[in-house]
Amino acid sequence: MGQVAVDQAYTNEVTDTGEKFWRKDVADLLRVREGFQLSEIDPDSLPGTHASKAEGHAELLRSEQPLRELQERLLARSWAGSRDRVLVVLQAMDAAGKGGVVNHVFGEIEPYGLGLAAFKAPTAEERAHDFLWRVEPKVPVPGVIGVFDRSHYEDVLVQRVHQFAPPEEIERRYGAINEFEKRMSDDGVHIIKIMMHISPEEQYRRLSSRLDEPTKHWKYSESDANERGFWAQHMEAFQIAIERTHTAHAPWYIVPANSKWYARVAIQRIVIQKLEQLGLTWPPGDFDLEAERARLDATSGLTWPA
Amino acid sequence: MGQVAVDQAYTNEVTDTGEKFWRKDVADLLRVREGFQLSEIDPDSLPGTHASKAEGHAELLRSEQPLRELQERLLARSWAGSRDRVLVVLQAMDAAGKGGVVNHVFGEIEPYGLGLAAFKAPTAEERAHDFLWRVEPKVPVPGVIGVFDRSHYEDVLVQRVHQFAPPEEIERRYGAINEFEKRMSDDGVHIIKIMMHISPEEQYRRLSSRLDEPTKHWKYSESDANERGFWAQHMEAFQIAIERTHTAHAPWYIVPANSKWYARVAIQRIVIQKLEQLGLTWPPGDFDLEAERARLDATSGLTWPA
Repeated sequence: MGQVAVDQAYTNEVTDTGEKFWRKDVADLLRVREGFQLSEIDPDSLPGTHASKAEGHAELLRSEQPLRELQERLLARSWAGSRDRVLVVLQAMDAAGKGGVVNHVFGEIEPYGLGLAAFKAPTAEERAHDFLWRVEPKVPVPGVIGVFDRSHYEDVLVQRVHQFAPPEEIERRYGAINEFEKRMSDDGVHIIKIMMHISPEEQYRRLSSRLDEPTKHWKYSESDANERGFWAQHMEAFQIAIERTHTAHAPWYIVPANSKWYARVAIQRIVIQKLEQLGLTWPPGDFDLEAERARLDATSGLTWPA
Repeated sequence: MGQVAVDQAYTNEVTDTGEKFWRKDVADLLRVREGFQLSEIDPDSLPGTHASKAEGHAELLRSEQPLRELQERLLARSWAGSRDRVLVVLQAMDAAGKGGVVNHVFGEIEPYGLGLAAFKAPTAEERAHDFLWRVEPKVPVPGVIGVFDRSHYEDVLVQRVHQFAPPEEIERRYGAINEFEKRMSDDGVHIIKIMMHISPEEQYRRLSSRLDEPTKHWKYSESDANERGFWAQHMEAFQIAIERTHTAHAPWYIVPANSKWYARVAIQRIVIQKLEQLGLTWPPGDFDLEAERARLDATSGLTWPA
């Protein structure tokens, strides 16, 4: 009875919120389709909603609690033996808002349920190993939502653009990624790969504002301006990588990201929807309830100091 | 100028909040003193404040933003070469509220700035190594607030109570811990060790409510009732461990925890105060501001597709 009541209350809440804000299934709208062209996707667009920025912020706040509860159920079920977990891969040009998504979407779930890994330029030891060597240990354990801020995709994106690896090695990696992600998926990892798509004009405004604000200088790197000179090559590398690694078990979503609020609320919704699909009922305890009640009650008079 | 203005605004905010809520320096009140007796500390007490539960919740919310900003400064400074980081060790009997502190105090800082490690019963591989072998890799890197939910202290607490290790090995560990923590401290780790102190009566109420609520069953373990039979031995192990490992560089704080709100707001305050003592001004950028402005502006006309 208690179980059913909780589930019911939860389901109603999410449905109500979603129906008000989203006019269409945003996960379906943003999911990559056969023949997609990145150059045809407008970073200013807001697929699936006619909401204002203020409504977007309100929806983000409203959906925090459903996301938190779904995450807690995922974690609870892992204690009861479930292998389910989620891996969100975030890839984007600099200043596209990956950090904001981590802080404002995933920062709202319990720390126990979040596995954040930020991949930077590989160390000498990492470079000496296969490119997936440093990734495997960061795959989330059951019950956790893993978030990769950059990922193994850097090895076919920036490494392709700057030819840090020869073409045949880049070519090998697409297949290796697909096999790796298939193996993770077969073990219960639900993979959501997201490209946050901003325009060069919007990136300019964001980098420029970092220079304007002394408390943001630590986030600015000289390489940020350099990479703008390779924008077309980066987009080409994204186009190819997404074509080669978009699979049923590890799909790509392209999220227009010129509006920070839209990108956050869309990614939040994609993750909530995936969790909803998992049918996350609360697991039963692994003990005899009446016997435990009796054992615990037998200690009810305990005091200390005696 | 911008730098000074930011610092000033920040400092005022924290001071105002603290002065309203805390009548005394709570970190000083809760810090272990020579000759302390755990049995004389009342888990129901609320040292340092006369506030109500509602005021406690309000203070917790009010101090989220100062804590977030201090954390961000700590992180920013690590990018500029600072070795500073914080390690909070949480130890307590079951259901004392460690999880609530993680979620409601540390869950409010940015995920990039939090390094949470939960130590469970050691695996066979971990048992084959020295007891600190599994701890070293979890020490936070510069810029991060590490939180240990249980820790190397389990090796002198539960292991002492149940004689999982012989007395001479337990004895060895106190010294090993002090040397380990001294080495961490010398490398820039600011260590805060907290015992959350609840009464057996309060633990009974909390465990009992977990049995009452089906969505909490996954948090209940049969060992919870068993361990109540060893309460006095656990308290003795705490008393000895704290006496033996309370040092200037790695002090213990005993936080009365029968009131969840008090424990949370007191721990939040202890951490904020430690961060304030570090003098965390924003670091300068590692670039020539005018030159970068010019380089970036030279790319301001970039569009894509061309």
